[in-house]
Amino acid sequence: MNAIIITIGDEILMGQILDTNSQYMSRRLTEIGVEVVEQLSIPDKGEEIYETVDYAMQHADLILVTGGLGPTKDDVTKKVLTEYFGTRLVFHPQAMEWLEELLRNRNLPMNENNRSQAYLPESCRILRNFKGTASGMWFERGWKSLISLPGVPFEMEHLMDTYVIPDLKVKYPHLQLAYRMLKVYDVPESALAHHLEEWENALGEGLKLAYLPSPGLVKLRITAKGDAVQHLDAAYDTLKEVLSGMKYTEGEDALEKQIGNVLRKKGATLATAESCTGGEIARLITSVPGSSDYFKGTVVAYANEVKIRVLGVDEKDIEREGAVSETVVLQMAEGVKKLMNTDYAVSTSGVAGPDGGTPEKPVGTVWIGVATPEKTFARKFAFSFTRERNMAKAAAKALELVMLEMGV
Amino acid sequence: MNAIIITIGDEILMGQILDTNSQYMSRRLTEIGVEVVEQLSIPDKGEEIYETVDYAMQHADLILVTGGLGPTKDDVTKKVLTEYFGTRLVFHPQAMEWLEELLRNRNLPMNENNRSQAYLPESCRILRNFKGTASGMWFERGWKSLISLPGVPFEMEHLMDTYVIPDLKVKYPHLQLAYRMLKVYDVPESALAHHLEEWENALGEGLKLAYLPSPGLVKLRITAKGDAVQHLDAAYDTLKEVLSGMKYTEGEDALEKQIGNVLRKKGATLATAESCTGGEIARLITSVPGSSDYFKGTVVAYANEVKIRVLGVDEKDIEREGAVSETVVLQMAEGVKKLMNTDYAVSTSGVAGPDGGTPEKPVGTVWIGVATPEKTFARKFAFSFTRERNMAKAAAKALELVMLEMGV
Repeated sequence: MNAIIITIGDEILMGQILDTNSQYMSRRLTEIGVEVVEQLSIPDKGEEIYETVDYAMQHADLILVTGGLGPTKDDVTKKVLTEYFGTRLVFHPQAMEWLEELLRNRNLPMNENNRSQAYLPESCRILRNFKGTASGMWFERGWKSLISLPGVPFEMEHLMDTYVIPDLKVKYPHLQLAYRMLKVYDVPESALAHHLEEWENALGEGLKLAYLPSPGLVKLRITAKGDAVQHLDAAYDTLKEVLSGMKYTEGEDALEKQIGNVLRKKGATLATAESCTGGEIARLITSVPGSSDYFKGTVVAYANEVKIRVLGVDEKDIEREGAVSETVVLQMAEGVKKLMNTDYAVSTSGVAGPDGGTPEKPVGTVWIGVATPEKTFARKFAFSFTRERNMAKAAAKALELVMLEMGV
Repeated sequence: MNAIIITIGDEILMGQILDTNSQYMSRRLTEIGVEVVEQLSIPDKGEEIYETVDYAMQHADLILVTGGLGPTKDDVTKKVLTEYFGTRLVFHPQAMEWLEELLRNRNLPMNENNRSQAYLPESCRILRNFKGTASGMWFERGWKSLISLPGVPFEMEHLMDTYVIPDLKVKYPHLQLAYRMLKVYDVPESALAHHLEEWENALGEGLKLAYLPSPGLVKLRITAKGDAVQHLDAAYDTLKEVLSGMKYTEGEDALEKQIGNVLRKKGATLATAESCTGGEIARLITSVPGSSDYFKGTVVAYANEVKIRVLGVDEKDIEREGAVSETVVLQMAEGVKKLMNTDYAVSTSGVAGPDGGTPEKPVGTVWIGVATPEKTFARKFAFSFTRERNMAKAAAKALELVMLEMGV
């Protein structure tokens, strides 16, 4: 079974917002074995929506549409779908009650724009939206389904989780697609590809390997379709054999989640002292539910006086070696470990850019310190890309150093 | 002039990575007046790439393609484009030199996978990639251009900034499209739409208003096409008149950038004390180049003992009122302001979820404290969505409170 995802909105095409809905929907569909064959982002113009819907209905079994359901003037999706499916907008008293309840709970008044949202296509199934004013709409034609969801991400996610995924599983019980993932560290994609070439060429029908490079690591994904699903585990096991000797971790969990699992198992705690990463490591760690079990906190020491006064870094060392130096990150890691009374700590100091580089310490130079119950050490990296990239790479590398040090 | 963007990669369609390239390319094209009419994400299969390229060449003047240029087996784009443009792959000695230089600088060996990247289509212009091994390729057919760029975001951005945007400006000097943006706070989208309806209906030909709701605010964008560009400023001025009395800020700069500008102008400094936002506010602020001019640092006080020992929050108050309380965020803001010796400070404490909620303090309850040179105050919010959303909303609201307090 295949699917096409359509996201509607001029703001996506102008690059003013990042479309995260397509990824969410794709991930959830993939999990239940639906193969997403295209993601299309189009303007909120009636004619283009109509043509794209028509194309998708001809080329896929399932079509998910988001965006263009809000109460404002640039939202035309509902009208187009009503026309496309040859039905009409009718007043839906129950949707009106839902709307009134929602607005009452939020202390908001009813107005014309809201009221129009109780007018819905006669022939579709209405999906109640508990988190917003635009209902979802599930159209069917033959064995095909088109489901229209609001564009606000948490409303879309709510409708996906509540109706779309559970009901698709019931409706199509025989979906089959599976994958396994692992992450390989410190090997460039091309060298890894070279190393794996022979193994990859021997993969059986229906099995496929993909390389997904990220900062500091390459994710490998083996996908199995149809009957090949039964051979997936064996292929995965031989892949691990071929990778022996390299640093890798299994599963698709993000590093911050894997670290959390290890810390929880050890009963150990972590703190961070961040300069160039500016809180990014802390944000990653705390993005994991339950991280308060093992994460105590962070000092973002952006100013040198904070490094000195809060973390106890020696002022003379900063003067002599500079803030981006081995001695400073060692002291930062030890300082925050002591301050927050944790088992592990990690620290960063670097030149994120775009300014502030020198011939000795160009943009992208980052020192990372790690303190464990046994020792403290530091490593130097040269990332040298954009500011955003340097911050992300340094944070990812800091997590990786902690995890590999814990013996994963 | 219109454009279609094609991103290639199974990992996008499986939802394993978020496609950020489309947004970057769209934003840069929009800035120079190119209208992006579609973004398409497709699998890395030869046939589908061929068909999509053919469709795009028929429907747009400019086609940008990313992904599928790396050295690994699932990269077929180069072959398909060579076939589509009726040319052949030839060894490109200069590309080989570039490759050797890049690998030498990175201390990496040359192998077969890399070597294949020196084979490039004979009829296209080769764009040298200083940040990776895959060159860009600029094909022309009649007045149309198709430009293929690597999928690694910072490599794609490098080629966009170095060649694509500058050369398009030279090639098509008469592009015309412009927009103005502002952000309105604390008004629901539907109420705002109702308020603006009359103004919007009076907008002239070629002018268009769009609503872009974000956490806690609605962005408004007026776009002008062709001759209407000359009426854009006047329309923008009348929009500001209609909005008078509401809280809004002008421009499309992110809040963290606007705050930075105001702090720098004031010669003032800022620190944050974060619990439920886990470093997200710090990360946003430090994402702005030059933020070290006004940002001193952060204490992420995830554990109560850190709130007490590092920030000086009264242990008894935490016991009596809980960590998610007015008194605690007031003390956190004042504590970090004193610790880091700043003019302003902002603090957060809340129940991010998914667990940890109580009937009195359900998931989504967040207290935010703000300390200024004159006073300290706190406000309570009820966001009540997902963890990620609660953290993002709380961080956005914290920035908004600081900015509005500084008198923007």
